[in-house]
Amino acid sequence: MRLSELGEFGLLAELERRGLAGGQDAEGAVLADGVVVTQDTLVEGVHFRREWTSWHDLGYKAAAVNLSDLAALGAEPEALLVALALPADLDVGAIAELYEGLREPDVAIAGGDTTRAGELVLTVTAVGRSERVPGRAGARPGDVLVVTGPLGAAAAGLHVLQEGLEGYDELVERHRRPPLRLEEGRRLGRVAHAVVDLSDGLAGDAARIAARSGCRIVLDPESVPRAPRIEEVADLPFWTHGEDYELLAALAPGDAEALGYTVVGRCEEGAGVEPEGLAGWDALRPR
Amino acid sequence: MRLSELGEFGLLAELERRGLAGGQDAEGAVLADGVVVTQDTLVEGVHFRREWTSWHDLGYKAAAVNLSDLAALGAEPEALLVALALPADLDVGAIAELYEGLREPDVAIAGGDTTRAGELVLTVTAVGRSERVPGRAGARPGDVLVVTGPLGAAAAGLHVLQEGLEGYDELVERHRRPPLRLEEGRRLGRVAHAVVDLSDGLAGDAARIAARSGCRIVLDPESVPRAPRIEEVADLPFWTHGEDYELLAALAPGDAEALGYTVVGRCEEGAGVEPEGLAGWDALRPR
Repeated sequence: MRLSELGEFGLLAELERRGLAGGQDAEGAVLADGVVVTQDTLVEGVHFRREWTSWHDLGYKAAAVNLSDLAALGAEPEALLVALALPADLDVGAIAELYEGLREPDVAIAGGDTTRAGELVLTVTAVGRSERVPGRAGARPGDVLVVTGPLGAAAAGLHVLQEGLEGYDELVERHRRPPLRLEEGRRLGRVAHAVVDLSDGLAGDAARIAARSGCRIVLDPESVPRAPRIEEVADLPFWTHGEDYELLAALAPGDAEALGYTVVGRCEEGAGVEPEGLAGWDALRPR
Repeated sequence: MRLSELGEFGLLAELERRGLAGGQDAEGAVLADGVVVTQDTLVEGVHFRREWTSWHDLGYKAAAVNLSDLAALGAEPEALLVALALPADLDVGAIAELYEGLREPDVAIAGGDTTRAGELVLTVTAVGRSERVPGRAGARPGDVLVVTGPLGAAAAGLHVLQEGLEGYDELVERHRRPPLRLEEGRRLGRVAHAVVDLSDGLAGDAARIAARSGCRIVLDPESVPRAPRIEEVADLPFWTHGEDYELLAALAPGDAEALGYTVVGRCEEGAGVEPEGLAGWDALRPR
């Protein structure tokens, strides 16, 4: 079977079934003594286009998606490693700009590997420490689902770029520079039963918690906080599409109330996610 | 300036000069509590060719080059992460075979990221723990240089493949499956002043120690142990070419004698490496 038929998640499940890879129970690898490691690869033409993304923003985004995974692991970031495969005719100034974008306060860029290749492939690895990793497998019936902020700005911002619309800079900015929810992640990490970051879309990310935890997740679309002005851009359910990099967590109702995050659903006995048919990110990916 | 003019090491030096990346003092990133992280990227057509390398061997090599870096850091390996950018028409069985090759006893494959791309780019990240990282910067005049085994088999094996020669299976095998010197690395890690793994060639890797340590390294070509039969393959100085993945260490003469490794040179006041003109790996890279 070809990778194109199986898909990335299918491949991971197949590798796990064969005992060749693990780690799907959390947003990254959880090692001894609370060391956690996350990794994300960005490929030109698949995950970004040079004409829509400056080198600086590309660096920022590559760091941010990893720091978002660290947030979901309840971790404090410690270092980034950068593996860069890139065309030999690239200007060194562009690479320096990319590295500038990768820089975050208190997070060392500790090394990596640079090599020539036909197309640009950027893998950023983040190492952090977590006192308690909530994982994805601990949600239980009776839990509520919360999100740490409004959804939809990233997908709407991409739509603005794709359609060449004007006057939505704050949405485009959100597409280019996702938020860092590290403090929220550490707060949730102490009490939550499951945490994911919203990269693939509300329904898809909720489904990961449901599948790993062995419960059913019932989302209440009406209660999902929407980012301002997304409904002005187009009549599309941007808030379902992902890449917002807010955190989605399952926890006891009392803890949710104490932390003050918006409740968007609940866990029940069963399997799967309700309502069905909430569109995910793939519908809006760069074409 | 373009990357092609500056080269990989030039780029790293430039990034370090701008304060954007560090970590050139050792074979990988050295974090708190002895956590060490190494990373290596293999690009199809640059570092390997599918017709010469099985998926299994590719996986093995990707793991081995990282474990070799961990060895130079005096570390015990703990986990590997795998970032795989690959064409969507690739067969899932091939990927499973690659993962099989990555498997090493007692080293978990703890996660990673898989994404589609035009060409195959494989980044493997290894995490380990080290009680003492010798680094590259501590060599001093009076030290001797030692290697942990004979050199030249990997480059000779590649030459055998390139020229389509027969009857040198053990050399080809050494090109495909470099040795793992983890135990030697931990032994050297306790006492050595500088350790590198021999990936780019004896002179180039010695030059890194010389540059970082601020000393001059005088190699004695006659005393470098050669792998058996390499001189039968061709009249080329394969032992200088690298990718042998033995360790090169600077340490006190008494410690070298106690450990029993072959002395191949010494450190003096000054800079650079003597003799000049020892060819490096680039001369034999896949064309």
